[in-house]
Amino acid sequence: MMAVDVAGDSERQLGTLQSGILYGVSVGPGDPELIAIKGVRILQQADVVAYPSGRDGEPGLAERIVAPWLQPKQIRLPLYFSFARVPDIQQQAWTAASDCVWEHLKSGRSVAFACEGDAGFYGTFAYLSQTLRLRYPEARIEVVPGVISPIAAAAALGIPLVARDRKLAVLPALYAVGELEQALDWADAVVLLKVSSSYVQVWDILQSRDLLASSWVVVRATQPGQEILADLRDRRDLKLPYFSLLVVQTRSPIGLHTSQ
Amino acid sequence: MMAVDVAGDSERQLGTLQSGILYGVSVGPGDPELIAIKGVRILQQADVVAYPSGRDGEPGLAERIVAPWLQPKQIRLPLYFSFARVPDIQQQAWTAASDCVWEHLKSGRSVAFACEGDAGFYGTFAYLSQTLRLRYPEARIEVVPGVISPIAAAAALGIPLVARDRKLAVLPALYAVGELEQALDWADAVVLLKVSSSYVQVWDILQSRDLLASSWVVVRATQPGQEILADLRDRRDLKLPYFSLLVVQTRSPIGLHTSQ
Repeated sequence: MMAVDVAGDSERQLGTLQSGILYGVSVGPGDPELIAIKGVRILQQADVVAYPSGRDGEPGLAERIVAPWLQPKQIRLPLYFSFARVPDIQQQAWTAASDCVWEHLKSGRSVAFACEGDAGFYGTFAYLSQTLRLRYPEARIEVVPGVISPIAAAAALGIPLVARDRKLAVLPALYAVGELEQALDWADAVVLLKVSSSYVQVWDILQSRDLLASSWVVVRATQPGQEILADLRDRRDLKLPYFSLLVVQTRSPIGLHTSQ
Repeated sequence: MMAVDVAGDSERQLGTLQSGILYGVSVGPGDPELIAIKGVRILQQADVVAYPSGRDGEPGLAERIVAPWLQPKQIRLPLYFSFARVPDIQQQAWTAASDCVWEHLKSGRSVAFACEGDAGFYGTFAYLSQTLRLRYPEARIEVVPGVISPIAAAAALGIPLVARDRKLAVLPALYAVGELEQALDWADAVVLLKVSSSYVQVWDILQSRDLLASSWVVVRATQPGQEILADLRDRRDLKLPYFSLLVVQTRSPIGLHTSQ
């Protein structure tokens, strides 16, 4: 418990001990090497390292990415976040987690929370940090940004996601068909996150617009078992895992001699 | 010139030497610590490290980020890319650069090109890699993804860029007003890159939609001299530098107890 030693008993008795900082450390989409240098430094300097607890006794993705960087003296704090889709139950879990984090912060210990992908891009960290802010407005919070899955997927595909004057739209899993149509009308590159549950509907729309040949599914981008499915014209029947995203280029693939 | 030693003269005489790989290494938005561990490894293993040459004798941003990681034995290759907005002149520069890179690759040397931000997100690397591919289809190219400026800006602002079911739109500098209106209709978070040239027009549109209080300008995100301008209601007269982006939340800021 480094920070307590550093702060010293006399400081605490005088009531001048400053609370620790909660860091949202973005660990990237899966490849352990995609964490930023800054993320590693913050993780190694933190008194407490938190992460979402795994399921079925297995460590979670964020925990696996950060584990090799940690020291034995650091406190490890798995936080339980309900997977139930019941708002009240989820909120109870976030409240318990933020209270637990606050206990460390108010004792002067810094807490680094490891978050898959980027902490501000559909990340679990938003729930933790906002619950903490509501309950303890004096909490100090900082974010170390990271690599997001659409960017990792484009790198895996070997295509620029966007260039020049092209426009990008990103939709999470819960989109309505109308929202997808609008995105395809408007943007030059469209990324659909967690596409598995709506894949067939999406496929039908892409077919009606003749976009299947310029669409790609990336499964588990940069994780073990990464798969790339190119040219979706004959692939209406795909059974996709949860970590699947779809990239659509609505204009001709970016070239150097096309008129844009 | 490590790779030449490794390959050996006999292999080259037999014509079996494999060409080197061109890596697009994304170095992030400016903070040197935001490069990924993988990017550092690739940079340190490469025989040749390339980057856009600086202006006025000063090193460029990408060069400054990677310089501390390089070894004296590595070949440094500044590549000149014209800043003229004349397509033919730009293309000549990309052609010369890709030919220069190919000379190294075909001799078996790996080349790591350091690219600001992410190589596939409005990055200079797209031009280099596509010119190379057109001229030398056998070239092997890989990308190490990185942190993009909208994600870095949101981290600096301390807000999640997107969460839950929210949708994201990103527009580069050259948008038309109509495209911006559509983006504001459709998305929950809109990011305008390089907003300086169109700032007054954008401000007028945001005012007409009552969105100025939930808009932020981030200047030089994560770079020295980073500035954050919050609540733009009284700020129609801003003179912004080139590296300025604007983040708009079109719905109420993300909260935990709103009905979404």
